[in-house]
Amino acid sequence: MKPFLDQNFLLHTTAAQQLYHEFAAAMPIIDYHNHLPPKLIADDHRFVNLTQIWLQGDHYKWRAMRAHGISEDYCTGAASDWQKFEKWAETAPYTLRNPLYHWTHLELQRYFGITDLLSPKTAAAIYERANTLLQTPEYSTRNLLRKMNVRVLCTTDDPTDTLEWHRKIAADPSAGLQVLPAYRPDKAMAVEFPAAFNTWTDQLSMCTGIPISTYDDFLQALKNRHDYFAQHGCRLSDHGLEQMYAEDYSLREINVIFQKIRSGHHLDAPETAKIKSALLFEFALWNHEKGWVQQFHLGAMRNNNSRAQRRLGPDTGWDSIGDFRQGQALSRFLDRLDAEDRLAKTVIYNLNPADNELMAAMTGNFNDGTVAGKIQYGAAWWFLDQKDGMEKQLNALSNMGLLSRFVGMLTDSRSFLSYPRHEYFRRTLCNLLGQEMENGELPGEIQWIGEIVQDICYRNAVQYFAFSVPA
Amino acid sequence: MKPFLDQNFLLHTTAAQQLYHEFAAAMPIIDYHNHLPPKLIADDHRFVNLTQIWLQGDHYKWRAMRAHGISEDYCTGAASDWQKFEKWAETAPYTLRNPLYHWTHLELQRYFGITDLLSPKTAAAIYERANTLLQTPEYSTRNLLRKMNVRVLCTTDDPTDTLEWHRKIAADPSAGLQVLPAYRPDKAMAVEFPAAFNTWTDQLSMCTGIPISTYDDFLQALKNRHDYFAQHGCRLSDHGLEQMYAEDYSLREINVIFQKIRSGHHLDAPETAKIKSALLFEFALWNHEKGWVQQFHLGAMRNNNSRAQRRLGPDTGWDSIGDFRQGQALSRFLDRLDAEDRLAKTVIYNLNPADNELMAAMTGNFNDGTVAGKIQYGAAWWFLDQKDGMEKQLNALSNMGLLSRFVGMLTDSRSFLSYPRHEYFRRTLCNLLGQEMENGELPGEIQWIGEIVQDICYRNAVQYFAFSVPA
Amino acid sequence: MKPFLDQNFLLHTTAAQQLYHEFAAAMPIIDYHNHLPPKLIADDHRFVNLTQIWLQGDHYKWRAMRAHGISEDYCTGAASDWQKFEKWAETAPYTLRNPLYHWTHLELQRYFGITDLLSPKTAAAIYERANTLLQTPEYSTRNLLRKMNVRVLCTTDDPTDTLEWHRKIAADPSAGLQVLPAYRPDKAMAVEFPAAFNTWTDQLSMCTGIPISTYDDFLQALKNRHDYFAQHGCRLSDHGLEQMYAEDYSLREINVIFQKIRSGHHLDAPETAKIKSALLFEFALWNHEKGWVQQFHLGAMRNNNSRAQRRLGPDTGWDSIGDFRQGQALSRFLDRLDAEDRLAKTVIYNLNPADNELMAAMTGNFNDGTVAGKIQYGAAWWFLDQKDGMEKQLNALSNMGLLSRFVGMLTDSRSFLSYPRHEYFRRTLCNLLGQEMENGELPGEIQWIGEIVQDICYRNAVQYFAFSVPA
Repeated sequence: MKPFLDQNFLLHTTAAQQLYHEFAAAMPIIDYHNHLPPKLIADDHRFVNLTQIWLQGDHYKWRAMRAHGISEDYCTGAASDWQKFEKWAETAPYTLRNPLYHWTHLELQRYFGITDLLSPKTAAAIYERANTLLQTPEYSTRNLLRKMNVRVLCTTDDPTDTLEWHRKIAADPSAGLQVLPAYRPDKAMAVEFPAAFNTWTDQLSMCTGIPISTYDDFLQALKNRHDYFAQHGCRLSDHGLEQMYAEDYSLREINVIFQKIRSGHHLDAPETAKIKSALLFEFALWNHEKGWVQQFHLGAMRNNNSRAQRRLGPDTGWDSIGDFRQGQALSRFLDRLDAEDRLAKTVIYNLNPADNELMAAMTGNFNDGTVAGKIQYGAAWWFLDQKDGMEKQLNALSNMGLLSRFVGMLTDSRSFLSYPRHEYFRRTLCNLLGQEMENGELPGEIQWIGEIVQDICYRNAVQYFAFSVPA
Repeated sequence: MKPFLDQNFLLHTTAAQQLYHEFAAAMPIIDYHNHLPPKLIADDHRFVNLTQIWLQGDHYKWRAMRAHGISEDYCTGAASDWQKFEKWAETAPYTLRNPLYHWTHLELQRYFGITDLLSPKTAAAIYERANTLLQTPEYSTRNLLRKMNVRVLCTTDDPTDTLEWHRKIAADPSAGLQVLPAYRPDKAMAVEFPAAFNTWTDQLSMCTGIPISTYDDFLQALKNRHDYFAQHGCRLSDHGLEQMYAEDYSLREINVIFQKIRSGHHLDAPETAKIKSALLFEFALWNHEKGWVQQFHLGAMRNNNSRAQRRLGPDTGWDSIGDFRQGQALSRFLDRLDAEDRLAKTVIYNLNPADNELMAAMTGNFNDGTVAGKIQYGAAWWFLDQKDGMEKQLNALSNMGLLSRFVGMLTDSRSFLSYPRHEYFRRTLCNLLGQEMENGELPGEIQWIGEIVQDICYRNAVQYFAFSVPA
Repeated sequence: MKPFLDQNFLLHTTAAQQLYHEFAAAMPIIDYHNHLPPKLIADDHRFVNLTQIWLQGDHYKWRAMRAHGISEDYCTGAASDWQKFEKWAETAPYTLRNPLYHWTHLELQRYFGITDLLSPKTAAAIYERANTLLQTPEYSTRNLLRKMNVRVLCTTDDPTDTLEWHRKIAADPSAGLQVLPAYRPDKAMAVEFPAAFNTWTDQLSMCTGIPISTYDDFLQALKNRHDYFAQHGCRLSDHGLEQMYAEDYSLREINVIFQKIRSGHHLDAPETAKIKSALLFEFALWNHEKGWVQQFHLGAMRNNNSRAQRRLGPDTGWDSIGDFRQGQALSRFLDRLDAEDRLAKTVIYNLNPADNELMAAMTGNFNDGTVAGKIQYGAAWWFLDQKDGMEKQLNALSNMGLLSRFVGMLTDSRSFLSYPRHEYFRRTLCNLLGQEMENGELPGEIQWIGEIVQDICYRNAVQYFAFSVPA
């Protein structure tokens, strides 16, 4: 029996082990999409204990705890940090076969050198040991990132964000790490809730100095921030959507719709679809103008639990996988842009794995030969961020497109301890390739395939996003 | 070459074999959902031959025979029992890789000690041997259940059922087996066919003594039977639906709709959806009040073949897998109940495996920390009741939720010879876990993982459904 | 490490190797659906170079090249044949894990005896060697087909086709190969584009001598060609559809709709669905009358890229996988025909693998016991024509129906070098069966399972399509 989580974890053939250890492991990390708070990097923050750095904000762990019958007090509630940790330690063994089980023990090993399995028996010792280490300078946010060899990371930012923390990090030559913003204008599209939309729009007006009374004003202000993000090194936009919107609309219609929502009225479904179609098209044009990459995260069904939503707000573990129809609108959206030769480099992520092949095939319709891997089928994401999900994404991509041109993994995480997910991805990738080398489905040319592994782990992303990586 | 169907059938690693033989095999069976006729248990019925116990009512075998070019005479028709068996024996070898091939030979082995492969050559000897055994007292229905170590089983019953057979079994201390009813009010929702609906409603009126002229009367009568089922030890309801219904409706609207159907008129699609939404919501409230578990079987597309339907009636092998949209209505339905804190323990089964991940993720939105595994992602079902289907269900559940809290397998069968499906499930489960132990993706802690296997095979179900299991 | 693409390529157990080498390999090929141009067979054409026979018209390769950043000049454009080949050789190594990588090297080996891996380094030598061989008589189209042991092939033909090349081939006793037409009336259903539809209808009128002013005339002319195809040995129809159409309609309505489109007007969505439903139903009746097999290819989303569509026309690599709803209309369509006992033998292919289980289960609803395997779940197709896709199709078919009655593989190809796809399929099939024999999930009866392999590779198709195979 192979020991759990040893150096050849997930690497089931000699070729896989060689690919990982000799080629993949040493590659730096480009984390082109995550939700880290830049302030904590700017401040080189240190966390006071393991609960603060590991459990706070982690809706994956909360969902597992709730499924285990743990009361909300110990998830998002009033219990003490130690009590919360204790309940997580009680839950952890019950997460076997869930990605949390692997993540938990990888993170304990890689960051803290702890190889014990987390359980009620080991909880106290692990908590104490990790907390002691967290007090040391090596466990500041920047050092945690350095430890993982992260060179570039892109956060996810609201257009109204001042980007002051990004500026502060950029101004500090000691950082040795590029922390770039990404433009995520989801709130500009959240027209379903007029009150919140108008509050946000007023905020946008304030931060740009542009009074917003017409749709054109709104676009101007959004574009102003797009430019501002570009000045701060932004190379990507990101869009979280149930599905793509690509309705027909006239500017006249959009003006009327915009007036309607600005006066606080609810839109009907066709109006909602029209204004979302209009906005997405504009964002896409700006992305193309600036040579940015645009990312579309499609298929989440959010805020399913209204009781919890009211009590705890969004992003606390009540989101899910939807079965929205994806094909036609996505095709139409990409085609409209391509028809004018204004389609930016694009990464498409889907959350329902039933759509994997559809998505992987769709990307192939808009590669025009100008850029290698122009339209990317994005990495397995959120609920799919595990071995199964990664393998299915890699297989769909391989079967329908060019794996070799893939820009690879990202954490999509809010936690400074999530970087072993890159390692997890790399092991999974090497395992797939190594197995096919061993069984004669790929040539046994380790150097060639090793270099492709390195491309996927690092070089493709650098090239595709056009990052200038710090030495 | 490993022999076919030996003691380590489906167990491909040492760890898997240990998990199965040392932990899983001896666990009693809780079959919390099936379609066994309780009368045959009450009567401790003996079947006259293998065709009667094995082929009669088995639409799986009929579909295979029809696909093999066997005329209906030998499936549901006038041919003799022996002729039917002969045709099944002719078909059996052609079912290789279909679950029927495994089920057939497992059932011959486990119940009759027959290890020959069924084929035209062996048909006569197998028929004779099995028939001889079927005459003996060991092959009465109760003894067949005892032989398989079944402790609790739940049948599936129409609200108008008198439950007399359940009462008879309960009254008989020699039974050593709990046979509980489950409340399945599908006919109360079959408003698409006004004539049949009204006949059934009149029957409901008769058996409750409640005259039914308004929607409120209808609810009262249904609730009356819900209470009656509870008095007979019922712990579950069950609902077979194409998809969930969670439309907005007012009581006023429902009253009008109910009058319309009671006067024999067809409802239009929105009316149909509204009254189904109303009824489902009521059932769910009652389930919550009583602490029952509610089961939803979603996604079957029934009675596709109208020619056969007219000749043979429902449940004769003309049902299929649908591609209904599932996400939004299911989310809404569960949320409405949760919002009032009246969501009962719930098991959700899907028939289209394209929805696996959606369903597994959805359950996680309504775990409120009050009960471990409150919302369950149900076992692979019907067309998915095979190794592939089980593995995919177990993987989706593991990846999105807590496998360790799973209430495990059920037969969903009409046959007294289907209990080896529990064995089949257990072997598949042990094989998945054992393989990951062997390859270092799980710790090699056999005792811990063995106990989780036992939880899934037995203890979780006892606790979740709150059965008091006979010794 | 097993060498790449050796004699046991894809065959990972001894049993698999035995099944393939002793049973499958020698079976002749029945290629019952492809897109070969019959003229090139009639002329026993020789290709001037590898680009002409291998790259021209191959949208799979073009998509890969575009994804690799190769300009359109080298795909469909003005570059020289050698330049195009060079760019393909540059792309080929980057297709690892895509089916193109396997196809490429299988085809080089099987047709040209070339075992070098295609890359910029080997490009010139491979091009030269293959071109030299292509000059020799052994590389004429007929000899290429003989080399692969192809006995019967069915092309895909427009109803207006004169079938002159099929006649010429049939008239030539030296051919030793049956080349049959298949009736593909997609243009008769392309009512979305009135101008093109009317041009085509006029052509149909010309070639039949039937003036077409009413729907009835239209049907008569189409039926006339159906008969004509039958006189030329046609045994199959084929239909490429996003989804099935089975709306209610009256002949009166269809007459009006037909007049509308004949006068050049666009139909609305319900009209479009109605006339498609009407036409499909008629075709199906004729297919039943003649004992033909009807094929439905469901789920492609075509011509996604309008810029490319305008420049290059259809079938140049801009098609994709759709997420159309399939279940209800397909069920209704088959049921209508079955209800009158006029349902022909039918093969259903799906392009979105999320529908695999739905499709495999659906076929089982219309097997009436008259013909073994009457309704077939068709082979993995187009984007799914790779190991993954084949395995999933074979598994879905096995789990829901009878693999043993499967009519097996077809190339669906436009290229004379695609016949190793039959070998690829056979290896994949033998590998699945062999693995289950080795691990005790199937009996180790090589002779029996070997014969089933032969049935699937050859005999089932001969019987099902009722071909009279040339010796």
